[in-house]
Amino acid sequence: MMNVDKLYAAVAEKGVVCVGLDTDFSYLPADFTDSTKTKAENIVAFNKRIVEATKDVAGCYKVQIAYYESLGIEGMVAYKQTLDYLRANKLVTIADIKRGDIAKTAELYAQGHFAGDFEADFVTLAPYMGMDSITPYLPYCKDNGKGVFVLVRTSNGGAKDFEYEKLQDGRHVYDLVGDKLNTLGKEYMGENGYSSIGMVIGGTHIEEAAEIRAKYKDNFFLIPGYGAQGGTAKDIAQYLINGNGGVVNSSRAVLLAYKKQEGTAFDEAARNECINMRDAIKAECAALNK
Amino acid sequence: MMNVDKLYAAVAEKGVVCVGLDTDFSYLPADFTDSTKTKAENIVAFNKRIVEATKDVAGCYKVQIAYYESLGIEGMVAYKQTLDYLRANKLVTIADIKRGDIAKTAELYAQGHFAGDFEADFVTLAPYMGMDSITPYLPYCKDNGKGVFVLVRTSNGGAKDFEYEKLQDGRHVYDLVGDKLNTLGKEYMGENGYSSIGMVIGGTHIEEAAEIRAKYKDNFFLIPGYGAQGGTAKDIAQYLINGNGGVVNSSRAVLLAYKKQEGTAFDEAARNECINMRDAIKAECAALNK
Repeated sequence: MMNVDKLYAAVAEKGVVCVGLDTDFSYLPADFTDSTKTKAENIVAFNKRIVEATKDVAGCYKVQIAYYESLGIEGMVAYKQTLDYLRANKLVTIADIKRGDIAKTAELYAQGHFAGDFEADFVTLAPYMGMDSITPYLPYCKDNGKGVFVLVRTSNGGAKDFEYEKLQDGRHVYDLVGDKLNTLGKEYMGENGYSSIGMVIGGTHIEEAAEIRAKYKDNFFLIPGYGAQGGTAKDIAQYLINGNGGVVNSSRAVLLAYKKQEGTAFDEAARNECINMRDAIKAECAALNK
Repeated sequence: MMNVDKLYAAVAEKGVVCVGLDTDFSYLPADFTDSTKTKAENIVAFNKRIVEATKDVAGCYKVQIAYYESLGIEGMVAYKQTLDYLRANKLVTIADIKRGDIAKTAELYAQGHFAGDFEADFVTLAPYMGMDSITPYLPYCKDNGKGVFVLVRTSNGGAKDFEYEKLQDGRHVYDLVGDKLNTLGKEYMGENGYSSIGMVIGGTHIEEAAEIRAKYKDNFFLIPGYGAQGGTAKDIAQYLINGNGGVVNSSRAVLLAYKKQEGTAFDEAARNECINMRDAIKAECAALNK
């Protein structure tokens, strides 16, 4: 079974929330941390509790590798342990690595993140260097059911600098990227109408949301920008099809939910936040008939 | 002293060759590898011999992290040990990580690669998401003398897919990226006329080389594409100013030089290759008065 089909099934069963394990040590409740352990060890213990509490209400998990790289070797061990724990629980994992390189270098990234210590179900990729920075990952999509989410139209302010620029044929840079990925994706289709070639499409600046969703209806979307960056449940719903076809990342709002839910344990608070977010988006999908 | 000034001085003293420690285990001579050690340990031993043999004829070293990430935790240890060895020898290091992310994520990458286990003098960055994927590195440029090389116009075939596309104002996408970086770079100038904001400019497709060099005369160039990808010494010389202002990466041609120099030890062969490459580019600079 291809991972994109596993993701589709998980979203159908558990909803669109993608819990972002972008876990900074400072996010951990002071009374939870164990001073006899390293920061990285504490982060892993925290991640496990979050996963345990949310695994029946989250469609998948995204692990942002930068949070672990920043802690050096012990951080990379924590990254591996977090992925191991997710895999042991048969949960769908997205390694948010945004790698973008070519030829043998990209082959090695693919090997590093689709097999071995850092194995994940999906990776995120950056397209600047061109399609030859994507193709080295395809053998793993074909043979091992892996999938990729490539940056297309991101949710940050700087997206305007290059992604939103218009080309001579009237398309934005992100349209060109999306169009090429959509064409490529047709060769890597799963059983539920979605391709292993997914796209990162931000949940903010949704002016062209309907157009984007219609154009790329066989690409699964990884949608950042909900909450803190301004994306609302109504915005997000525009990018979904029958409440599926996308996952919506939430990191800090889930990990730090306990700060807004006084007297509630951090893991229970995270679970509540996932449920609230899932239901808010579900309600908007129903209202919009999406 | 800023790292861009250290790099300028190293190039003036030792030449433009940037040795790429993109060390795949398969590159190691069979009679050098020690079967009681891991692949990663063997790679570190090999790297040290290459560095020892080339450190007076190479301007700097670039370590491509993908080669180490692909080996998981032990690979990351090898990555750290390679950087540690370069730092202990006071050599200028470029971490070829091509990271591209925003906000806190980018801050953490900066922390991870400009301090701690994986500290390097320069990192490479990818600009797709916009200038807010570059700015989080700037405090380290200002306060710690660090520098960045941002992808502008790369040497691979896929560069044509997005980088070479023309915008409505007639500029290529890479021109827009380069222009914004050049403007930003003026706030981070070193003592020798070069900024801590460098650019990756491929040594192939050199049609606009003179124009690019003239436009971005205060940005140091990291130049891939020499040799295997088709860039000649004459091509490369177009991108230099008085034989400086750029470093030219060579990885496989240096690491595997022993395969073309029968009877010569791998480290001596690597040294010979650096000298030949340095002198070939120097001669073309002299001929072109660059």
